[in-house]
Amino acid sequence: MAAIGATGRGGVNRQALSPEDGAARARLMGWAKARGFALFLDPIGNMFIRRHGRDKDALPVVAGSHLDSQPTGGNYDGVYGVLAAFEVLESLEDQVIATRRPIEVVVWTNEEGSRFSPTTMGSAVYAGAIPLADALASRDRDGVTAGEALKSMLAQLPKTESRPLGSSAHAYVEAHIEQGPVLEGAGKRIGIVSGIQGLRQFTVTVTGEEAHAGTTPRARRRDAFVTAHAIVGALARLTADRADTVRFTVGRFEVYPGSPNTVPGRVQFMIDLRHPDAGTLARLGDRVFATCRRHAAPCAVEVREMLHSKPVSFDPRMVARVRDAAHRLGLTSLDMVSGATHDAKYMAGLCPTGMVFVPCRGGISHNESEWAAPEDLAAGADVLSEVVADLAAE
Amino acid sequence: MAAIGATGRGGVNRQALSPEDGAARARLMGWAKARGFALFLDPIGNMFIRRHGRDKDALPVVAGSHLDSQPTGGNYDGVYGVLAAFEVLESLEDQVIATRRPIEVVVWTNEEGSRFSPTTMGSAVYAGAIPLADALASRDRDGVTAGEALKSMLAQLPKTESRPLGSSAHAYVEAHIEQGPVLEGAGKRIGIVSGIQGLRQFTVTVTGEEAHAGTTPRARRRDAFVTAHAIVGALARLTADRADTVRFTVGRFEVYPGSPNTVPGRVQFMIDLRHPDAGTLARLGDRVFATCRRHAAPCAVEVREMLHSKPVSFDPRMVARVRDAAHRLGLTSLDMVSGATHDAKYMAGLCPTGMVFVPCRGGISHNESEWAAPEDLAAGADVLSEVVADLAAE
Repeated sequence: MAAIGATGRGGVNRQALSPEDGAARARLMGWAKARGFALFLDPIGNMFIRRHGRDKDALPVVAGSHLDSQPTGGNYDGVYGVLAAFEVLESLEDQVIATRRPIEVVVWTNEEGSRFSPTTMGSAVYAGAIPLADALASRDRDGVTAGEALKSMLAQLPKTESRPLGSSAHAYVEAHIEQGPVLEGAGKRIGIVSGIQGLRQFTVTVTGEEAHAGTTPRARRRDAFVTAHAIVGALARLTADRADTVRFTVGRFEVYPGSPNTVPGRVQFMIDLRHPDAGTLARLGDRVFATCRRHAAPCAVEVREMLHSKPVSFDPRMVARVRDAAHRLGLTSLDMVSGATHDAKYMAGLCPTGMVFVPCRGGISHNESEWAAPEDLAAGADVLSEVVADLAAE
Repeated sequence: MAAIGATGRGGVNRQALSPEDGAARARLMGWAKARGFALFLDPIGNMFIRRHGRDKDALPVVAGSHLDSQPTGGNYDGVYGVLAAFEVLESLEDQVIATRRPIEVVVWTNEEGSRFSPTTMGSAVYAGAIPLADALASRDRDGVTAGEALKSMLAQLPKTESRPLGSSAHAYVEAHIEQGPVLEGAGKRIGIVSGIQGLRQFTVTVTGEEAHAGTTPRARRRDAFVTAHAIVGALARLTADRADTVRFTVGRFEVYPGSPNTVPGRVQFMIDLRHPDAGTLARLGDRVFATCRRHAAPCAVEVREMLHSKPVSFDPRMVARVRDAAHRLGLTSLDMVSGATHDAKYMAGLCPTGMVFVPCRGGISHNESEWAAPEDLAAGADVLSEVVADLAAE
């Protein structure tokens, strides 16, 4: 999989609904067909690989993650959870084990949110948190809609049976690299994920007036860059906590027209704000609007909230299942809250949901040098296999 | 000309060495050929339209400006000076007036510097201030070199006689809109330009480390955006003078990879710094390097100076000629220093040089709403005509 969209610098650029995303899905579909598994696609492009159970009417146990990457992404984020889940199916097949419930591997569409906003689009639409039409209307930087990109990508793939959004599941389990430094720091192999911190994303558009950089005095400028700079400074002060628990990031910041000798007339940037506590996240996020307005003069500012995803706690019985499986396998483990958001967040509202984390080197992710040790990845897949097989026997 | 590269919002996008730049040159070449004028191109693509004089060996009087525009440029910046100079030739032709000296209209390549750095590239190469090879190696954001773009553009144009760089001239005169608010504010029609303020341009590259926005604590980040933000803040404080004479602009600021949930690993931005006083410009510009380094941690920073163009004073006899011509024509006028840089800056080092300014509405330029009154434009062309005809009679 790491060869699809490989950048040549150790990572991948396999953004959502791109030809590379399509190529990765096609490869997985080929493996699934070779095993005789059934395939389904829903209207946002979420893909399901089903291994039938003995009881045709039983709800499936679902496991998976995503195949899309950041523009300079690593080889483990998302793809690990998909391949680990697929190996669970392969392993049951190899051992000729029949389960009572069907087991499905899911590939969620556009988890990363780097090409199309928002992040975890596929699971959000699946869970009804975002209307399908809104998601399909989301545009990338070239003006292409997610709907158009999805159509192009599907044209690459073999014809596949459709299924509606939000079909019921018995439980959902997702394996993932931690993407943070906690497990490595504690010297533990398995993260027992009790929940996911909350996330709010905002798009801020500052509109000023283009002017000649050589002739226009500072006092006469309506410099969108200067205003955006002041707003970001104020937001950084607002969110700078001594405990270093708040996550505040400006990852996209675009200046127009981008000419060195023209005073910028427009800046658009995105805020990514996270906190494990719902109250703190609500309070800080709500202050984003007023902070932007207070520093807007002499420009105009527009703030749009793209996503408000509250902190989520997983079903304690699922958390216990993951903990017990790690214990049975003799693996060291640690209970933790996920700093990154995942599709499991939306699944938690639909069915009992859990996650299994494995360490990644230096806690580094969203980076081409992202790396995880094979033995940790195997340990995580073993835990996933235990939990899924137990659930499928119910 | 305003139709070529028209954006549909009142302005033009006719960036240097683009197909639109080529189309504008082709149109002017057609007009020149219809009049029987001679055409020449030099190795950086500067174009010369020559009306012969009686004395074949006399050095020409040269007048002109540029046809390239900012990405969201107006209809007057540059193109006015070219068309006013061409009308001088047409008017002499219509009146069957022979001049002793040849008169040439020049179209300088890439005055704007928005696609390829630096600004006033064509005249800088012509004057020997920048090696030709360096200019041709300059790359746009898509990685295309100026040399490649020039070759493509020349393929659009009729075959034209070559001439070497830096051929001598008797004098150079350039008409231009002021691009600032001074003439309009003073209610004067003609700006007698005594010189051009100095300009330094820098490219700053900040390199940090990409990381996950949800998991990476502030203390562990090497966020290139945060560092670049701090550097720009420090530079703004360094250059904020009470008199509002320093011009400090960050017009280009690019964040990589530009994903909302990835801590930026790299930021590249450009600084445009201007002042009429050589000493002040030298002092402030020299402090840019240390200021960037002082705020670099925990990232790495690289500062490259792209251009250091000292303030220029025009030959007082040329300034007097412009003043006298305006006076003879009964036009109100004002002596002033140009806030914008112009190709006249490099010509001033080669031959006696002058400039004629006309007001533009609200002082607005590098903006699609740029506008100048027809009667002001005509008055400026009249002054240009007087000065050029006088010089050509010498």
